[in-house]
Amino acid sequence: MFGRDEGAILDEFRLFASEPRARAIAARLYASVAELPILSPHGHTDARWFAENKPFPDPATLLIQPDHYIFRMLYSQGVSLESLGVPQAGASGDLSATADPREVWRIFARNYFLFRGTPTRLWTDYVFSTLFGLGERLNADNADTFYDTVAKKLQEPEFLPRALYERFRIEVLATTDAAVDDLAWHRQIRESGWKGRVLPTFRPDAVVDAEYLGFRENLEKLGEVSGEDVSTWKGYLAALRSRRAYFKSLGATATDHGHLTALTADLSLAEATRLFERVYTGRMQAGDVELFQAQMLTEMAGMSVEDGLTMQLHPGSIRNHNPAVYGKFGRDKGADIPAPTEYVRSLQPLLAKYGNEPGFTFILFTLDESTYTRELAPLAGHYPCLRLGPPWWFNDSPEGMMRFREQATETAGFYNTAGFNDDTRAFLSIPARHDVARRVDAAFLARLVAEHRLDEEEALEVMQELTNGLVRKAYKL
Amino acid sequence: MFGRDEGAILDEFRLFASEPRARAIAARLYASVAELPILSPHGHTDARWFAENKPFPDPATLLIQPDHYIFRMLYSQGVSLESLGVPQAGASGDLSATADPREVWRIFARNYFLFRGTPTRLWTDYVFSTLFGLGERLNADNADTFYDTVAKKLQEPEFLPRALYERFRIEVLATTDAAVDDLAWHRQIRESGWKGRVLPTFRPDAVVDAEYLGFRENLEKLGEVSGEDVSTWKGYLAALRSRRAYFKSLGATATDHGHLTALTADLSLAEATRLFERVYTGRMQAGDVELFQAQMLTEMAGMSVEDGLTMQLHPGSIRNHNPAVYGKFGRDKGADIPAPTEYVRSLQPLLAKYGNEPGFTFILFTLDESTYTRELAPLAGHYPCLRLGPPWWFNDSPEGMMRFREQATETAGFYNTAGFNDDTRAFLSIPARHDVARRVDAAFLARLVAEHRLDEEEALEVMQELTNGLVRKAYKL
Amino acid sequence: MFGRDEGAILDEFRLFASEPRARAIAARLYASVAELPILSPHGHTDARWFAENKPFPDPATLLIQPDHYIFRMLYSQGVSLESLGVPQAGASGDLSATADPREVWRIFARNYFLFRGTPTRLWTDYVFSTLFGLGERLNADNADTFYDTVAKKLQEPEFLPRALYERFRIEVLATTDAAVDDLAWHRQIRESGWKGRVLPTFRPDAVVDAEYLGFRENLEKLGEVSGEDVSTWKGYLAALRSRRAYFKSLGATATDHGHLTALTADLSLAEATRLFERVYTGRMQAGDVELFQAQMLTEMAGMSVEDGLTMQLHPGSIRNHNPAVYGKFGRDKGADIPAPTEYVRSLQPLLAKYGNEPGFTFILFTLDESTYTRELAPLAGHYPCLRLGPPWWFNDSPEGMMRFREQATETAGFYNTAGFNDDTRAFLSIPARHDVARRVDAAFLARLVAEHRLDEEEALEVMQELTNGLVRKAYKL
Repeated sequence: MFGRDEGAILDEFRLFASEPRARAIAARLYASVAELPILSPHGHTDARWFAENKPFPDPATLLIQPDHYIFRMLYSQGVSLESLGVPQAGASGDLSATADPREVWRIFARNYFLFRGTPTRLWTDYVFSTLFGLGERLNADNADTFYDTVAKKLQEPEFLPRALYERFRIEVLATTDAAVDDLAWHRQIRESGWKGRVLPTFRPDAVVDAEYLGFRENLEKLGEVSGEDVSTWKGYLAALRSRRAYFKSLGATATDHGHLTALTADLSLAEATRLFERVYTGRMQAGDVELFQAQMLTEMAGMSVEDGLTMQLHPGSIRNHNPAVYGKFGRDKGADIPAPTEYVRSLQPLLAKYGNEPGFTFILFTLDESTYTRELAPLAGHYPCLRLGPPWWFNDSPEGMMRFREQATETAGFYNTAGFNDDTRAFLSIPARHDVARRVDAAFLARLVAEHRLDEEEALEVMQELTNGLVRKAYKL
Repeated sequence: MFGRDEGAILDEFRLFASEPRARAIAARLYASVAELPILSPHGHTDARWFAENKPFPDPATLLIQPDHYIFRMLYSQGVSLESLGVPQAGASGDLSATADPREVWRIFARNYFLFRGTPTRLWTDYVFSTLFGLGERLNADNADTFYDTVAKKLQEPEFLPRALYERFRIEVLATTDAAVDDLAWHRQIRESGWKGRVLPTFRPDAVVDAEYLGFRENLEKLGEVSGEDVSTWKGYLAALRSRRAYFKSLGATATDHGHLTALTADLSLAEATRLFERVYTGRMQAGDVELFQAQMLTEMAGMSVEDGLTMQLHPGSIRNHNPAVYGKFGRDKGADIPAPTEYVRSLQPLLAKYGNEPGFTFILFTLDESTYTRELAPLAGHYPCLRLGPPWWFNDSPEGMMRFREQATETAGFYNTAGFNDDTRAFLSIPARHDVARRVDAAFLARLVAEHRLDEEEALEVMQELTNGLVRKAYKL
Repeated sequence: MFGRDEGAILDEFRLFASEPRARAIAARLYASVAELPILSPHGHTDARWFAENKPFPDPATLLIQPDHYIFRMLYSQGVSLESLGVPQAGASGDLSATADPREVWRIFARNYFLFRGTPTRLWTDYVFSTLFGLGERLNADNADTFYDTVAKKLQEPEFLPRALYERFRIEVLATTDAAVDDLAWHRQIRESGWKGRVLPTFRPDAVVDAEYLGFRENLEKLGEVSGEDVSTWKGYLAALRSRRAYFKSLGATATDHGHLTALTADLSLAEATRLFERVYTGRMQAGDVELFQAQMLTEMAGMSVEDGLTMQLHPGSIRNHNPAVYGKFGRDKGADIPAPTEYVRSLQPLLAKYGNEPGFTFILFTLDESTYTRELAPLAGHYPCLRLGPPWWFNDSPEGMMRFREQATETAGFYNTAGFNDDTRAFLSIPARHDVARRVDAAFLARLVAEHRLDEEEALEVMQELTNGLVRKAYKL
């Protein structure tokens, strides 16, 4: 993304096939999109950064402490989360409160070899090389040099959040926000006159999952912020509609739903009303938690048909698998593990009701690659509303992205996919992640061209679509 | 298949690896089978075409209206089935009754880019180029030229069904026929003196699946055509035996079974008798539909042991997933979606009873690729009766065929597979589909040779087997 | 492994990519480990061979009769197990009692083409070529020459078990032994003064699986050999502890557990005690067999935390699928078929209890490749105790090993894997199997280097780790 000013550790042909003809085609395809803006329609950065535009903290707090890809690998090899300064549940996110950032950095540096063969290594090398001009591979010996260089630069004006946003050539950056969030930072960004486009995304998990921590309080909060009576099914739905409208007024174009399964339901009004009563009053029967989430996906689809917000579904993650880590450190600490996920029967009620609605866009993600050819591509190759989201989480990697293209394209085509999501809270890694995605797409298309399955001219068109066109369309940007 | 008279859009090395050594080996392997006859032991063409030998209708009615691969992709991108003239349920198949064929063709042409990266694109380019001499890529601008050229040629004698059959170098072509079908067109072909070999295949789904549309009437029809009393278990089985014998007398060598699951059962005579009574009288208990189908697979296997008809099982498709499409347009409209499929426990009762019978051939298909290494290859690498059918439906594509070879060969070997099926009602695409299959097999074998895992001389032998030898053997042709 | 003295049928670049740059890198990586010793921490050779050091029997009895990879393929193509002299249940293992070894050999030779594309073919070619100097491909014509050559050499001193162990450059060879085994042959080896390291592995399946053949007698035997009262839960656990200590005293560093599923449980002492009573007295309720095995995995993990033995879990094989073969020939006759296997929820109770224990090593295997990216790599990339075992059984093949690296590495990294297991009772094939594994690892790493995802210098380090370092660490050798 930054021309050729890449360090020695980044080869200009990286991630392309080694066969010279396919490699040359890939290089041409990549070059045609290398300078395109970044569209980031799904991610987890913090709007506050861009509202306040203060310098990022020290290297460890910025790059290690919030990145579960990094500390899960270190933990798996016996490094304690305490020694990495991972904040304990309920504590502030300030790493320096619990561990010396430089010491944390040294642990990371001396274990950097563990990331060989992983995408984290590709991303991190890219950040060091292109952003900080650190052209060596990080190791125990150069740990302090890296730390000092990064720490110093982070204080410079060009490394302030807004400057980086511009330098990264970001055109739009979506955050993910709770349904009850007041979006104050988003409002502040809009009112600041800064031209950056940071958009909220409506994520209602905490008010539709009855087992979510603080579910009942979340409902009360929803009532407050919406001014609706959430003790009734009708009022609850009205509250959600109201919040969606508020998100939309601040630029949101999409919702996001993180469920354990892809189950949907289409209950009668009477059934749904009774179900909500049981959920609201805490008198749930067996299966009610799942059924309520299932019904709510269909309700959300209906609201998307009304208000045009693109709907995203991320199912299949079993959260907080390790109780010792959860008890001490809380959520999102690398102990979420995928589960087998079924889509065909699960989504049928929703798709039967709204699957043929013009203007409705429903983007599906998965952690279960066995569903690409079996379920997701056949569904997306039929239903007008469906688009396939890019490889998610653990699959957001060169091999994972290649498998997605190889397994989804023949049945769903390219045009039923939705471009790339970086899905990250690691802001500095965003260009690195998009760079990997563009390179892998170029490598895949280059193979099709080299095997005479596609003309190069066509592949150039597809590259543009995968990089920008399909993203704009799927997310209505 | 037609030497080098291929258009500019068909490279002679298409689908081979771009690495020159592997490519050269693939080209030699492919050349060794390029001129071999087509054996098409499983498909959905219409015997009537060859009995009547009348010209095919206009390009849209021939190439678009019956091809669910084509209209499912168009539908997924917002093109209505009405605008494509897809006949509504109960209506005749005559496209011109509902839409102007030329307009339908123009819609297809301007959306042809959607098929980039799909097998439909490979097949269609091949048909245009080799059959109609249309060496450009179809698009909005040349749509009318294409339409006129195809329409004109379809009226020429060399484009009559029998002439194409011969030009395609087809040696045998199997259709798929209901158990109660009178096979009048097949009889007419045999009596016509034409040398083409068009064989029926016995497909009893409509009389073994109690939820099949018109099941009860189908049973009555079965009684009539067989002259057996189908109100008893014994008479019902006798009727099926009688129909199998009739199919066999008209050249059938195989049966085909499309079930939701691979479940089989081995009930006692008393249990089976009672189950049949419940099914026949419509007094079914929970699970009876599945159990009856399961029992019938085992019964059919027993009859195959007796009469030598090769048995095919195609499980795992959830039919008519989209009720709006089903309600208006009926079956087979691109809304059948695969489901996870289990084989190991499901097939055990049948295999325990007949799996070791000499002379019994049982060909398994799947829509669930995760079963290749886990279930299908281990089963086929042990049971003498089992052969693996080629990649089916959505998996009948270059990547899908390559995954099949990569995942099945090491455990099942080549010799427990059954060659290629085109499985199509799109008669004109048959040579294209066999061409893709031969090229992918050549590419796979070329890699083994290039990596010194097989001698080229051995690979040449295997190519012959995959193309013709194993098909003749598995289908007893 | 034997320099270049390979026959004409073994190319020095076999199993490397055909693209010249990647191939050259692979060759350098392979060369760096080709001479390293063999660590075989999991297998099924017979300690008696090394205790007695007598010549191996005739070629057929040595190479065909005990190799279920070989006779399952022959059986699948209609060769009877009787004609191969496979011993019937209860009979001795002496092939010559039931079939003429030379005739068996001829059947194998004339069907050797069936193994094209399978790992058996690679292993067997390697054995013939490097060990017996037979540089042709086996076929019907040279069958007798091969037989005579092998038979003659097997009588020579350099082909005695201990000589081969040394010639194969084996550093450690683990067997698999029942919990009640007296390990007499292991004792005899240690007392013989021979420097070879043949270690037992503790496999308690027969005393924790209540459906195991002779379970009750096995328990009694366990009581006898341990001197504990196995009629109580406490005494039963003490007996297992005592046997583990005995195995450890004879060099064991690991246990192995073959279960139908990966289910684990964490019952209270009271629940476990009652469960054991029901199991011991044969008054089991529905689900007790599974629950007892599940609880025992957790108990075994607890004992591993105490005594440091590495724990291995091999779930997911449905044993004895073919009753006709089982009835006549007994266990392990090629009719064990994999089943879908779930790990994430199944292992949670055990991992919640012991997953964070320092010093505990728990190696997971699978027959269900769909779990690599979805379950196993995410689990191993988080829990400190977990390591991923190499591709197992049907997946222990070039394509299978490549898929494992491609699918597990990006999430688990290289350092959460455990190196290669040959897992074989075919002693002569051990170098062949390690050679294939080293070559495939070299080919995978070469691709990463050729695509600039790893430096060659790093790849050389990883090669050493995969070949020896990670094995020593995971198995505490």
